[in-house]
Amino acid sequence: MTNKKEIIAGIIIIGNEVLSGRTKDINTSNLAEWLNSLGIEVKEVRIIPDDEQVIIDTVNELRNNFNYVFTTGGIGPTHDDITAKSISKAFSLEYGYHKEAFSILENYYKPGEFNEGRQKMAKMPITAKLIINPSSGAPGFYVENVFCLPGVPSILNSMLGGLNNVLVGGDQVLSKTLNLRTVESEIAKPLSDVQKKNNEVEIGSYPFFRAGKLGVSIVLRSTNQKKIDQCNDQILEFVKEKKIEILRKI
Amino acid sequence: MTNKKEIIAGIIIIGNEVLSGRTKDINTSNLAEWLNSLGIEVKEVRIIPDDEQVIIDTVNELRNNFNYVFTTGGIGPTHDDITAKSISKAFSLEYGYHKEAFSILENYYKPGEFNEGRQKMAKMPITAKLIINPSSGAPGFYVENVFCLPGVPSILNSMLGGLNNVLVGGDQVLSKTLNLRTVESEIAKPLSDVQKKNNEVEIGSYPFFRAGKLGVSIVLRSTNQKKIDQCNDQILEFVKEKKIEILRKI
Repeated sequence: MTNKKEIIAGIIIIGNEVLSGRTKDINTSNLAEWLNSLGIEVKEVRIIPDDEQVIIDTVNELRNNFNYVFTTGGIGPTHDDITAKSISKAFSLEYGYHKEAFSILENYYKPGEFNEGRQKMAKMPITAKLIINPSSGAPGFYVENVFCLPGVPSILNSMLGGLNNVLVGGDQVLSKTLNLRTVESEIAKPLSDVQKKNNEVEIGSYPFFRAGKLGVSIVLRSTNQKKIDQCNDQILEFVKEKKIEILRKI
Repeated sequence: MTNKKEIIAGIIIIGNEVLSGRTKDINTSNLAEWLNSLGIEVKEVRIIPDDEQVIIDTVNELRNNFNYVFTTGGIGPTHDDITAKSISKAFSLEYGYHKEAFSILENYYKPGEFNEGRQKMAKMPITAKLIINPSSGAPGFYVENVFCLPGVPSILNSMLGGLNNVLVGGDQVLSKTLNLRTVESEIAKPLSDVQKKNNEVEIGSYPFFRAGKLGVSIVLRSTNQKKIDQCNDQILEFVKEKKIEILRKI
């Protein structure tokens, strides 16, 4: 795609509970949709265990590959929350009480309730910048291009707004979805022909099964709306020819 | 963990639709729970785009790091389904019509309906072993320790049973969950003390919010049931002391 200003991101989901299958990850899709809206494309996601060396290695690999890296999970008060310490090591920064974070948390809790576990949430790279948490006090933080967010989706989502002005996006990827009452193998050939003629549009084909009925969602993605529309018209030609029903909703 | 026979796996979720946030990945948790039941632990998941070189590099990296690798997605009939070709390249194997797969698909479709798109689903490394698909005909396949499954969860799930006798598992990781009406920061200190005394049990702490109420799930994981029970007893001691309510269900 020519002349496109591409800003790309990686996501690191930290947590044994996701790898064991106990917890279904929904942070990836929430983060990806929010990043898309800022013109930032997610190019890779890794789900890794609560293991210091794995976190350090993964962060150091991804922060060199992508404009932005987002981590989720492991910044709470318990012994298995080791993200902040691992990030300090990844950047060779001092890990300790972050003054501003400590002050935020001290004010958040009632006198006498700011115990050891809660104080731990103020420990991070001491020079990190904070990501304010409007839901539950304990802030996230970022160092250079690595942004560390909590694992609880509702808290994570509440913190994203504070980053809208920190991140610099590129051209936004636009998309158009066409839902068809057909199966993939019926349209594979003409769809492939349309893809060959439209190299600035990424055409995805996704079968679905809803209420016992089969269908295919065709998703067109590009930074150029005109190219999407042209591509869409070409698809509609063979859809009409093959008398395939277009579904308004699925 | 001493003398533990550990068999580990990596999962590669292939698909732009997951990276864009459009599709929420549920294959990871389904695969992980099934693998756990066979004594195989998932240690890493990567979500990557429909990009041939990325697929090749990721498969080649992970197949050296793990006993088993599972890929999902990209084995359908359309132009964006490039997993089978990429796997052929990763293993330097000939990509072409797999005789047995071709025959299965030829029999599956009515005469005259076995079109070019459908025939594509028989293309894979020609020496691959097949994974039978009881739902929709088109088989998955595996080469050495890399198992390629479809992206549609219901079809993927229907194919796993056929692999139970192919995979060789290790010691099964057992788990016990304790749901408490508390917040993490209230129990962080005593829980950390219990973890220090029980190094053969992995203690995870996961806050939850249901019906407007806060709670914490404590998950104990180990291959040794006795060690889990001991650890559980030690946790119950401080739970009782702190008068924390135990929830039967959340």
